[in-house]
Amino acid sequence: MQNKNLTLLTDLYQLTMMQAYFKKDIKDKTVVFDMFYRKNPFNNSYAIFCGLDSVIEYIQNLKFTENDINYLRKLNLFEEDFLEYLQNFKFTADLYSVKEGSVVFPMEPLIKVVGNILEAQLVETAMLTLINHQSLIATKASRIKYVSDKEMFIEMGARRAQGESAAIYGSRASFIGGATGTSNILAGKMYDIPLFGTHAHSFIMSFDNEYEAFLSYANTYKENIFLLIDTYNTMKSGIINAIKVFEVLKKENRLPKSYGIRLDSGDIAYLSKKCRKLLDNAGFFDAKIIASNDLDENIINSLKMQGAKVDIWGVGTKLITASDCPSFGGVYKMAAVISDKEVIPKIKKSDNIEKITNPGDKKVFRIIEKSTNKIKADLITLSDESYDNTKDLIIFDPKAIWKETTLIAGEYDIYPLHYKIFENGKLIYDKPTTKEIREYTKKELDLLWDESRRLTNPHLVYVDLSKKLYDLKIKILKNDHIGGK
Amino acid sequence: MQNKNLTLLTDLYQLTMMQAYFKKDIKDKTVVFDMFYRKNPFNNSYAIFCGLDSVIEYIQNLKFTENDINYLRKLNLFEEDFLEYLQNFKFTADLYSVKEGSVVFPMEPLIKVVGNILEAQLVETAMLTLINHQSLIATKASRIKYVSDKEMFIEMGARRAQGESAAIYGSRASFIGGATGTSNILAGKMYDIPLFGTHAHSFIMSFDNEYEAFLSYANTYKENIFLLIDTYNTMKSGIINAIKVFEVLKKENRLPKSYGIRLDSGDIAYLSKKCRKLLDNAGFFDAKIIASNDLDENIINSLKMQGAKVDIWGVGTKLITASDCPSFGGVYKMAAVISDKEVIPKIKKSDNIEKITNPGDKKVFRIIEKSTNKIKADLITLSDESYDNTKDLIIFDPKAIWKETTLIAGEYDIYPLHYKIFENGKLIYDKPTTKEIREYTKKELDLLWDESRRLTNPHLVYVDLSKKLYDLKIKILKNDHIGGK
Repeated sequence: MQNKNLTLLTDLYQLTMMQAYFKKDIKDKTVVFDMFYRKNPFNNSYAIFCGLDSVIEYIQNLKFTENDINYLRKLNLFEEDFLEYLQNFKFTADLYSVKEGSVVFPMEPLIKVVGNILEAQLVETAMLTLINHQSLIATKASRIKYVSDKEMFIEMGARRAQGESAAIYGSRASFIGGATGTSNILAGKMYDIPLFGTHAHSFIMSFDNEYEAFLSYANTYKENIFLLIDTYNTMKSGIINAIKVFEVLKKENRLPKSYGIRLDSGDIAYLSKKCRKLLDNAGFFDAKIIASNDLDENIINSLKMQGAKVDIWGVGTKLITASDCPSFGGVYKMAAVISDKEVIPKIKKSDNIEKITNPGDKKVFRIIEKSTNKIKADLITLSDESYDNTKDLIIFDPKAIWKETTLIAGEYDIYPLHYKIFENGKLIYDKPTTKEIREYTKKELDLLWDESRRLTNPHLVYVDLSKKLYDLKIKILKNDHIGGK
Repeated sequence: MQNKNLTLLTDLYQLTMMQAYFKKDIKDKTVVFDMFYRKNPFNNSYAIFCGLDSVIEYIQNLKFTENDINYLRKLNLFEEDFLEYLQNFKFTADLYSVKEGSVVFPMEPLIKVVGNILEAQLVETAMLTLINHQSLIATKASRIKYVSDKEMFIEMGARRAQGESAAIYGSRASFIGGATGTSNILAGKMYDIPLFGTHAHSFIMSFDNEYEAFLSYANTYKENIFLLIDTYNTMKSGIINAIKVFEVLKKENRLPKSYGIRLDSGDIAYLSKKCRKLLDNAGFFDAKIIASNDLDENIINSLKMQGAKVDIWGVGTKLITASDCPSFGGVYKMAAVISDKEVIPKIKKSDNIEKITNPGDKKVFRIIEKSTNKIKADLITLSDESYDNTKDLIIFDPKAIWKETTLIAGEYDIYPLHYKIFENGKLIYDKPTTKEIREYTKKELDLLWDESRRLTNPHLVYVDLSKKLYDLKIKILKNDHIGGK
């Protein structure tokens, strides 16, 4: 699964545009492209930026093979000089990114590509595919983690994922967002994610009866003996046979540290409470209850409100597909053209005000309130601006510029979010492991006020523009005649 | 992207179950597993079965590498004899399937695996991942094709797909379901799918003005000159500049056969009618209008009702993620254990009546009404039953057994839907090309009554059980005591 070449995972129009540039003197232009998103998924207040590791791998493997070139030639769209250019193509741009696992907000440039217009254009599609997918799932997972709180939560959606990479990278993104582990062995192997599993109804059905099936499983494993108790009848058969087996194990002094039952159908609130009582009555106070069956953060929240006694949540379909919002609207827009060292900011106008982009070569700062260690605001600025906390800082809401806040010197911290990942096409960034990213995400989520983590109607985090960027934007919007400059 | 080894793309519990079987004499049992689904997605009346090609590739590449074995060893779950078994693992089962691209219905066994219990168990997860994803997207695409009717419809969702395989195989599934083509070059290359593309807003923004950008594009290409007219202002700028460029091309006698404009924002109904009028007034009657922007079958239907003048629909996010129902509920359940040549049918009971499986080694027949060439019903039977149209046939609704229909000999056709794909693990099936599958799907869709193709509340197609299968099911359900047999 390594060294995938996804160079052709791009929209045809990227190549036709590139050829049109190639045929003009425009081909030597340096441009700035921003990847950002406009709206949080799930009515959340934030997103978890995820997928940078895949983007790095994608860019490192960028290469048109001879076979690719032959295919493109047959399309009768491309001329030989352009095909030769593609055959010799090398990614030579600078690429900046916020760290994978960061908490991010709408309109912030998350990835910035500064490079030749052709190469900057080529990478749009695959980069968006990778970031959009993984950020979506990581964000969903962080919501599930929020409600499952101290209980464990396991990603187990592989069979309902939208193809194999959705299963693998969705599992990785879930882990980063807060899942304790996964059922997906390949994801576990590729990204060192803890694996979890029980057994299926078919296992129970392969034996002459449920008790024999349970006992056989318990005789095979020394740890993690979780028995699926709903194949025939949860209360009349499953829980009774499970307790019988636990009693055998106890008698034979081989009751493992981690054991219990799994509920996969019926009313989880009702059944988990009933089963908890039976387990406790039999003296199995440390037996754990796993629940699965079309769970998501809203259902878990509602089950917990009713006192469900669940220790481990198994979450499948609704996490791995992000079913209530299965796409993340990340876009990639031109922000500037650099001509003779002069930066010409570009803007995408739209009748829809929210669709208007922020012009220029930009970066993002995060402002932390020292007394609480929570995010006060993020600040998008032009790339030549610098900030530190030795001076008072006035920030304002770009949608309501009269709403100003003054941050007192020393009472806040401010730091840039962009890291340089590729320099002239060369990777200069030390990639963290998936576990390190997961730890980082945990810390990032702690920077949010609890009010911003509510499942519904959360408090939104401020993303402000610097005065310089704001003035530039207004100037361009006022001056720009119809038809664009 | 070929020769992918997805052997570890499986849930941990498949391997822990396998080891539990391996340790018992149960390990030599032959079993029958059925892959089927319970509910049509999108409130549709049918699904398009898609993904068999990927399943064949998956099974042909099944192999635990040494690296895999080392990883599994480190989990401290598996004993050496079992790891050795895995290292020597070969898929040796028989696998039956309906043809890829078939119109199928709930509860029908779509894939049937007859083989050793360990191997039959192993393949569950990946097989479901592949079939669930691709059947979902092919079904969605067939709905979009139904409303777009004689207009073309292009899949262009790569950037919002849930990872790269969702983009690639989603594109293939869309093509099978009825898309005219795709914007995804890699999918186009891998599966010989026609490619389509225009250009992006960034292209327009790279030039000094819109007219120059349009002209430059038109000077680069001889065919398929489609100009994106909404970068600055569709009516006040875009359409005017586009017509200017078409006039240049006409004057210079190089107006291509295929050319036109693309609308990517605003009200498509209003703008397409306005633009159509302006194009017609300027004499460009054959200029085509492409529309995109969060389209799906419902929006297209509603735009057409209002007389939108669109020739080509570009469909992205909502198709590639099947956004209104992003998962397909295919499951894989044990149907029988074959013991000393005796078939012991198995059933998964459930309090939820619809979740009760059909027991035994089965197959499916399709019954066609000769006078209309439409599907009368599908008939699930036991595998030792045979049918032909020389005798009258009585079928009945298994949910309302008093509702009988008598089919008169000669007035109907009946044929089996299962093909043998693997025999003792060896591929014996001649795989059709993607284009052949697409043609086949078109014919399959023609077998449906128009009433079954309605977007909402369609007429459901009857899936009946043979008398023999029905009697067997009732007998087991009546006799089976709690706790299973």
